[in-house]
Amino acid sequence: MLNCQFEVHKRDANSRARRGTLHLPHGDVPTPIFMPVGTQATVKAMSPRELKEIDTRILLSNTYHLFLRPGHELIRGFGGLHNFMQWDRPILTDSGGFQVFSLSEMRKIREEGVEFRSHLDGSKCFITPEYDMEIQQALGADIAMAFDECSPYPCDYDRAKAAMGRTHRWAARCRRAHTREDQALFGIVQGAFYKDLRIESAKTLADMDFPGYGIGGLSVGEPKPMMYELLEEIEPYMPQDKPRYLMGVGSPDCLLEGVERGVDMFDCVLPTRIARNGTVFTHHGRLVIRNNAYARQEIPLDEECDCYVCRTFSRGYIRHLIKAGEILGARLTSYHNLYFLLNMMRQIRQALEEDRFAAYKHEFFEKYNENP
Amino acid sequence: MLNCQFEVHKRDANSRARRGTLHLPHGDVPTPIFMPVGTQATVKAMSPRELKEIDTRILLSNTYHLFLRPGHELIRGFGGLHNFMQWDRPILTDSGGFQVFSLSEMRKIREEGVEFRSHLDGSKCFITPEYDMEIQQALGADIAMAFDECSPYPCDYDRAKAAMGRTHRWAARCRRAHTREDQALFGIVQGAFYKDLRIESAKTLADMDFPGYGIGGLSVGEPKPMMYELLEEIEPYMPQDKPRYLMGVGSPDCLLEGVERGVDMFDCVLPTRIARNGTVFTHHGRLVIRNNAYARQEIPLDEECDCYVCRTFSRGYIRHLIKAGEILGARLTSYHNLYFLLNMMRQIRQALEEDRFAAYKHEFFEKYNENP
Repeated sequence: MLNCQFEVHKRDANSRARRGTLHLPHGDVPTPIFMPVGTQATVKAMSPRELKEIDTRILLSNTYHLFLRPGHELIRGFGGLHNFMQWDRPILTDSGGFQVFSLSEMRKIREEGVEFRSHLDGSKCFITPEYDMEIQQALGADIAMAFDECSPYPCDYDRAKAAMGRTHRWAARCRRAHTREDQALFGIVQGAFYKDLRIESAKTLADMDFPGYGIGGLSVGEPKPMMYELLEEIEPYMPQDKPRYLMGVGSPDCLLEGVERGVDMFDCVLPTRIARNGTVFTHHGRLVIRNNAYARQEIPLDEECDCYVCRTFSRGYIRHLIKAGEILGARLTSYHNLYFLLNMMRQIRQALEEDRFAAYKHEFFEKYNENP
Repeated sequence: MLNCQFEVHKRDANSRARRGTLHLPHGDVPTPIFMPVGTQATVKAMSPRELKEIDTRILLSNTYHLFLRPGHELIRGFGGLHNFMQWDRPILTDSGGFQVFSLSEMRKIREEGVEFRSHLDGSKCFITPEYDMEIQQALGADIAMAFDECSPYPCDYDRAKAAMGRTHRWAARCRRAHTREDQALFGIVQGAFYKDLRIESAKTLADMDFPGYGIGGLSVGEPKPMMYELLEEIEPYMPQDKPRYLMGVGSPDCLLEGVERGVDMFDCVLPTRIARNGTVFTHHGRLVIRNNAYARQEIPLDEECDCYVCRTFSRGYIRHLIKAGEILGARLTSYHNLYFLLNMMRQIRQALEEDRFAAYKHEFFEKYNENP
């Protein structure tokens, strides 16, 4: 895959953390990186120019949602997702596997593919690995993901093993069906919470020689230490020269723990979803801005943040906007939360360059309390 | 009132239109001007810096809404509305009279003031002209409006006359209660759709020597020609050296007709309200972007518009955002609609400066169709 080259510039001496660059058709992406999620071809409440202002280097969009609305053929007609949403930097599309899996009662998994009903109008759909590749190639992101079967938490061994096996067979079918040369196809490691399955999955996919690897099926309800342990166990079996993408993970503590365990890429709706509900990240932990305690506070959301929102608006004003259901409230909290994560990743990259990742992590957690 | 000086630079030779400047504590405002409405201390879907980008020179906020939430005392604690919402250009607050009046079944009008129930929690409130001044002075806008009683359309003569009389007595009480020197207080002409009442109202208020005059109770359901006729009839009775503000009017055709009849200031929620429902202004009239016809169109909302939205996004993409209920959809349509009106007012001012207002108006209506 000529159009996805990954360079590792530096490896941390005391952990598995790496500092790298992902070269993609729409530009270079420094790693480790967080990818804001633009589910329906827009990162909720944000404009493309604001995303650039906060240094978004790559964003993710959801194949399942775009397939249903407005449809991949419509987006193909616009010359692909980049042109449709006017985002000229790299994009990654997921496969829709996780979303289809989440429909639970509304889907049926067969070897050939998955039958499901649209959450929008109940219409019946059938997606095979081959069709998924057709959809993602029409969307035209820089990176496409193989169509996989995600296991829930908890999940019994046999079911997890069966889902993993199918994920591998589907990965091979995706690889055969994928022809677009200006798009990289990543495989996805599955295996639920069984060490041996995860290792088998990492090895099997490594043998297929994908240009990058997703780690799927984590952060689905399990305790965080369980996720961290699994990451440590599979890391040695994942190719050292390929990017690793921990799917659906995006809380500040998980980003740091993930980087330490050799993860290069992350995505999550968390920062924008909690923002719309009025919860924001600060260097001291999360803050629920709806609380009455903030009504008269003139200080910014996070006194240690230098984003546009924190340089301009008070907690009292933002609380008023959120309480009154004003769009600007969701805009300001979303902007700040994304900035917080992107800025944190920038600092992590810098710390890695300067051989002080452990010190950075230590300082971060001295202040940050995930569950105040 | 030292802090509100109005200069008329030029009068149109063929109509009552004037080109002027309003000097206010937070800056100069060129007239004729359109004021975007920030009901709850935010122009819906817009940020202050976007409002500046589209050349918003003054905005309006609603006393009734701010009184109920977050409360004028809270805003006073922030040093006033400018600091609360981080808007350093002029602001005008209405008196809340129109909103209270619109509560119909939920309010009782007495000579002393108006008793009403909050639309938020049903709590009982009582606002007198004196209390209204206290609230607006706490908000601290550059321009406050007198507390008035608005008549509906249609309205019988006796009721209209009574409401007008009360409006005049309340205007006098507002004038006595208003003490803030860095805030101008405008009177409001009422009198429903009776020429003699309107003229009496214009004269009575002129005698009270306010630094500016609102024209209230229009655009409340009457046919547009009826409004235009009334404007023509009362214009000679309104002071030539004071700004005239036609309240709640903001469709492109009404702006042109209003300017021609001597109006200097306008406000309306129309551009942002229809925007959120997916209707946008174009040089050829309104366009309902939800329509399927636009799904695959790559052209901008308005091909003759040079705003950020029209320079960047397609009709197809914006239609998708609106259909999917995405915040960015409301943002882009609101931005465009406000730009459309502000840009139109800029062109009107330029036409007045260059003695070609009639030609501009003619050219505009040659293309523009208000009801396609």
